[in-house]
Amino acid sequence: MVIESRVQNGIALIYSRHTTAAIRVNENEPLLLRDMAEFLEGAAPRNGHYRHNDFSIRTANMTDDECPNGHAHCQHLLMGASEAVPIIAGKLQLGCWQRVFLVELDRPRTREVIIHVVGE
Amino acid sequence: MVIESRVQNGIALIYSRHTTAAIRVNENEPLLLRDMAEFLEGAAPRNGHYRHNDFSIRTANMTDDECPNGHAHCQHLLMGASEAVPIIAGKLQLGCWQRVFLVELDRPRTREVIIHVVGE
Amino acid sequence: MVIESRVQNGIALIYSRHTTAAIRVNENEPLLLRDMAEFLEGAAPRNGHYRHNDFSIRTANMTDDECPNGHAHCQHLLMGASEAVPIIAGKLQLGCWQRVFLVELDRPRTREVIIHVVGE
Repeated sequence: MVIESRVQNGIALIYSRHTTAAIRVNENEPLLLRDMAEFLEGAAPRNGHYRHNDFSIRTANMTDDECPNGHAHCQHLLMGASEAVPIIAGKLQLGCWQRVFLVELDRPRTREVIIHVVGE
Repeated sequence: MVIESRVQNGIALIYSRHTTAAIRVNENEPLLLRDMAEFLEGAAPRNGHYRHNDFSIRTANMTDDECPNGHAHCQHLLMGASEAVPIIAGKLQLGCWQRVFLVELDRPRTREVIIHVVGE
Repeated sequence: MVIESRVQNGIALIYSRHTTAAIRVNENEPLLLRDMAEFLEGAAPRNGHYRHNDFSIRTANMTDDECPNGHAHCQHLLMGASEAVPIIAGKLQLGCWQRVFLVELDRPRTREVIIHVVGE
């Protein structure tokens, strides 16, 4: 993407168009990924109490396949929708151990991520 | 803002100039907003112990209307000062459920938010 | 940096090339810095259980001076690798109390931070 864009000096913005799937830069070590999943579950447990999950009282933003995902929104609040990575001399400046993750916080599904390269 | 800027390809950076008010992208569902307020209160309770709130020992950065807000700084640490959203073909690329929030973590007051559109 | 770049309208992206050192904008008040360290320790304790720290089973990404830092990765997940600050009329738009921090989450060591100024 960055090479194809021919941008020499700029920013790559990796952006999730969702509120229950986040973008994060971290290390891709399999055991760590499990630690982080456990950590997020501890921060906002899937089976915790969320008004957003009470479909008997909620009226807004209901879809046909609505499922209880209050925990996923709270976890997303901690992480955010995007990460920005510098491009210098046409190269993405990720550190040695840095990898970019789409963090699925709800159930498996198709997601839309924009990799937006700006600069010159 | 984005239309007025006439930027076709770029980034909208929504930036809070504060350390106790954050910018986040999430879903605007009234019950969820209450869940998230409760979640943040659980993460860093307003009535918790913070040295920053002990005005008998603190000497730095004291203002005339200083009030105890250690919890708000800690919650801000989790969320950050800004979100960046791609602009493509002159349109802000927010997802279907995504809305941009100024998250007030301290007491109600006037806040300054910069909506900074860069690109061409 | 911003002045030297002569950029009048743009973004300063302050970027940590690490997965155990984060960039955050917050207030530089000495007691608050101790509160935030304690807050992060509470969120992901250094002595907690992390599979990433179990060198008897972990095989990936091992270095010669590997040390247990699962807590630092989890804390980094909460904060992120960068902050972006608007530049308007050649000036960095930090708010009155805002300062940019490199947050060391692991042990003291040399770190690499990119201050990337883009715009025109």
